[in-house]
Amino acid sequence: MQTIDDYRVLIETAIKNLQFPEGKLESLYSPIKYALSAGGKRIRPVLTLMTADAFGDKAEMAIIPALGLETFHNFTLLHDDVMDKSELRRGRLTVHKKYDENTAILSGDTMLTLASQFISEVNDSILRSVLDSFNSMAIKVYEGQQLDMDFEKQSQIKLDDYIEMIQCKTGSLIGTCAKIGAIIGGASQSDVQKMYEFGMMTGVAFQIQDDWLDTFGDSSTFGKNIGGDINNEKKTYLYVSALQSDTQTAEALRDAFKIPAGELRVKAVTRLYEKLGIAESSKKAVNHYSSLALKALNSTDLSDEKKEVFRKFAEKLIGRKK
Amino acid sequence: MQTIDDYRVLIETAIKNLQFPEGKLESLYSPIKYALSAGGKRIRPVLTLMTADAFGDKAEMAIIPALGLETFHNFTLLHDDVMDKSELRRGRLTVHKKYDENTAILSGDTMLTLASQFISEVNDSILRSVLDSFNSMAIKVYEGQQLDMDFEKQSQIKLDDYIEMIQCKTGSLIGTCAKIGAIIGGASQSDVQKMYEFGMMTGVAFQIQDDWLDTFGDSSTFGKNIGGDINNEKKTYLYVSALQSDTQTAEALRDAFKIPAGELRVKAVTRLYEKLGIAESSKKAVNHYSSLALKALNSTDLSDEKKEVFRKFAEKLIGRKK
Repeated sequence: MQTIDDYRVLIETAIKNLQFPEGKLESLYSPIKYALSAGGKRIRPVLTLMTADAFGDKAEMAIIPALGLETFHNFTLLHDDVMDKSELRRGRLTVHKKYDENTAILSGDTMLTLASQFISEVNDSILRSVLDSFNSMAIKVYEGQQLDMDFEKQSQIKLDDYIEMIQCKTGSLIGTCAKIGAIIGGASQSDVQKMYEFGMMTGVAFQIQDDWLDTFGDSSTFGKNIGGDINNEKKTYLYVSALQSDTQTAEALRDAFKIPAGELRVKAVTRLYEKLGIAESSKKAVNHYSSLALKALNSTDLSDEKKEVFRKFAEKLIGRKK
Repeated sequence: MQTIDDYRVLIETAIKNLQFPEGKLESLYSPIKYALSAGGKRIRPVLTLMTADAFGDKAEMAIIPALGLETFHNFTLLHDDVMDKSELRRGRLTVHKKYDENTAILSGDTMLTLASQFISEVNDSILRSVLDSFNSMAIKVYEGQQLDMDFEKQSQIKLDDYIEMIQCKTGSLIGTCAKIGAIIGGASQSDVQKMYEFGMMTGVAFQIQDDWLDTFGDSSTFGKNIGGDINNEKKTYLYVSALQSDTQTAEALRDAFKIPAGELRVKAVTRLYEKLGIAESSKKAVNHYSSLALKALNSTDLSDEKKEVFRKFAEKLIGRKK
């Protein structure tokens, strides 16, 4: 197996080599190139390459399908940004801000079909299982996004429902990246399922950690402003956990959110979270889902050496400070 | 073979029998049910059933893939309505008006993936060719929509470019409906291609006829108000044809479009079209593309009796007054 950085280089190179129609269709494809070139850690396609490599030395064969998963991920970000009216993504203007909303909708649609095309570049013998995994995952991601949007309008949310939402919205994609890599690598059906579990649980831990970082992280390494979620009144793991407290505390929390967005609100909400021990309970949840991920990984037929590479991947992803 | 109405009943029944998750995911799936239940002539899936039946007695096997093509069509209408800010579709509120824009975007995305799932319900031996046809068609449709949106900002458009646009936006989907039906029916590669051509050219003739009807049709049978395209300054076959005239006439046309939307503008533009013989030249174009469609149909290995059913289909579609 290679290092995570090596896999990332394979993906970045493949993205750079993508050819799109030019000329009069520039207005459709230029936003797609823009969206795909935004960088980021490429953790999803990297996981696909790693898994294909670990199970069958098939990293090369997994590049285009992995690109399909990265294209799908960027399509969801693009449409989510339109829905959330976000103006910035990874420090650059979002597609609907740089171009316009219609362009963002149509280029996003095109990216979803491109993703299907890329994902289909596998041998005939595994086409159906790869395709079914991809489509089921996509449906889960939309359902997760819908649940997330519905949460914004709800004043009471169960923690279980929040976990279900991030399993759909974040976990299922990361799980499917590992799963499709495993299928391409020729893993046994049981290991394919275990690798899905590994990716899924890593994704859930990652999302809770991300929620934690947004409030308790260090802005110099997190890459985003601390308190963004509080200012946007986002229903995060922290917020939803706090809502589970007694009526009086939940009321105090809602009052704190009534303070106009800004430093004062961030401080008031953070203080309440601290009082409730939310930082600790979130960390506990991160550890819980991380250990479920490792349990799944450990139960595969992979060698200890290979397991170690996936352990490092999960650690790097979840333990990250930015 | 059965009658066109029989095939339509098969499709309507399949749509009615579709099962979607309920409960908390209602907010995602209820707009999809709404969009799919809008009715319409279902000409696209009907064509798929007809073709599968004609070539291999496989109408039953084609129902779910045909549903995929209808779902794709309705997905494009849904997102197009968001982009065009249309308020009505088939006499009912559009999805983004009945629900909201975010719901329309996300439900549309879900429909595209559902379409992929439906289209994949074919035998393994033809999965790749059906899937490749579907994905290539989808890309063409997006490209056509982009060209169409770009036209709205252009003051001069070549007639060839207009034809290319409707080949992408309308023709390729109808062509692919016939093509996928032919693949499912087990047609020869050559007949698959000829049926694509038949559908494509029928689609082009249909679109030009639709443009013609919007200005020269009879509002009591057309189902839409006459002059809608003129009031929306839509770049139709009529408009683009008229723009090919001498500079002075093109100028007069642009002046007529400066009249505020309403009866006066519709009359002024229609009068200019009449002066230029646009009604006749459009009809000529409809006949030209219809005859290309029939030429492709006639060159297939189908029996005369079966060809006659497709001829009737094209006639019904293109010759329609509403």
